[in-house]
Amino acid sequence: MKILLIGATGTLGTAVHKALAERGHEILTVGRSGGDLRYDFTDPARTAELYERAGRVDAVVSAAGSVPYKPVTEMAPEDYLAAFHGKALSQIDLVRQGIPRISERGSFTLITGVLAREPIPTGTAASMANGAVEAFVRAAAIEIAPQRINAVSPTVFTESLAKYGDFFPGMPPVDLADVARAYVRSVEGAQTGQVYAL
Amino acid sequence: MKILLIGATGTLGTAVHKALAERGHEILTVGRSGGDLRYDFTDPARTAELYERAGRVDAVVSAAGSVPYKPVTEMAPEDYLAAFHGKALSQIDLVRQGIPRISERGSFTLITGVLAREPIPTGTAASMANGAVEAFVRAAAIEIAPQRINAVSPTVFTESLAKYGDFFPGMPPVDLADVARAYVRSVEGAQTGQVYAL
Repeated sequence: MKILLIGATGTLGTAVHKALAERGHEILTVGRSGGDLRYDFTDPARTAELYERAGRVDAVVSAAGSVPYKPVTEMAPEDYLAAFHGKALSQIDLVRQGIPRISERGSFTLITGVLAREPIPTGTAASMANGAVEAFVRAAAIEIAPQRINAVSPTVFTESLAKYGDFFPGMPPVDLADVARAYVRSVEGAQTGQVYAL
Repeated sequence: MKILLIGATGTLGTAVHKALAERGHEILTVGRSGGDLRYDFTDPARTAELYERAGRVDAVVSAAGSVPYKPVTEMAPEDYLAAFHGKALSQIDLVRQGIPRISERGSFTLITGVLAREPIPTGTAASMANGAVEAFVRAAAIEIAPQRINAVSPTVFTESLAKYGDFFPGMPPVDLADVARAYVRSVEGAQTGQVYAL
């Protein structure tokens, strides 16, 4: 398949790229600062341009999203808006604009995260954005068939424990290779409206 | 308790008002077009003013939120933004600004809805907003203790079947009185971070 991979140069994106490439797919990498196509993910005006340049693809795979982390009492409305734009609307718009452009049986795979179900302090904006995307995925799935849409919702990566482990005390980490496998499952499988929690 | 009830004049708000009044609470009603205080819920700048006028309250209860319904292919980014402002950020800001203002053991009860878990066509923005609020509730709960926060997430009301029943084929409706009871449970109970799905 021809796959558009957003956030291709990040920690997760790199692992997803490797897993999809090993499966023989042709991958068009997209990143803010690297990849085949440069793209500011949070600007919906640029999404049309991205699809224009990419041409017809069979799967759109996202490993990109950013949200602010602060105690709830220090959050401003702008922080929740930044989280909404940076992880929810950005990915939703990728789907919205992709529906008429990708293959008839193409798929979308979005990234969310464990904070949708298991909160941590300073994580209200992240939880909110993840919850928004997961509910959107379930809802969009019943409208876009035979196109498909799923989310991958990982906990902290084993490879990122040194950096982020303190935020997830006692929570089992997940290997990047296993997260990447969930993307393969979404892209090559037949399920839709799923949230692959791992 | 002294309770601030947002969206007091709507179908749900009226039922919640009745249930809380029957329990002997003092209720300050807030509505866009009626109630003790008039308030445009989607303008965060007005929330400080609302709390200023309300004085110290023991519980903030929301039965207000609006989202657009359209096929996903007809949605614009503005529609998702309207849903985010109209149901998610509006309620989140009520919490954010309420934390330093309500009682030390006060509570927040927000409204979401069945579309967070059971989608219907044209409901992607509604699902998204509900999912955002439910994940926020779980996350905020662990930061604001001993203050509490819960969500009430009802399916279609029995009393609204004539108007909305066609959107929920075969789905069991819920009586407004049972939904109102969930608000009582949230306000008078001791649980936090819960989503009361009914």
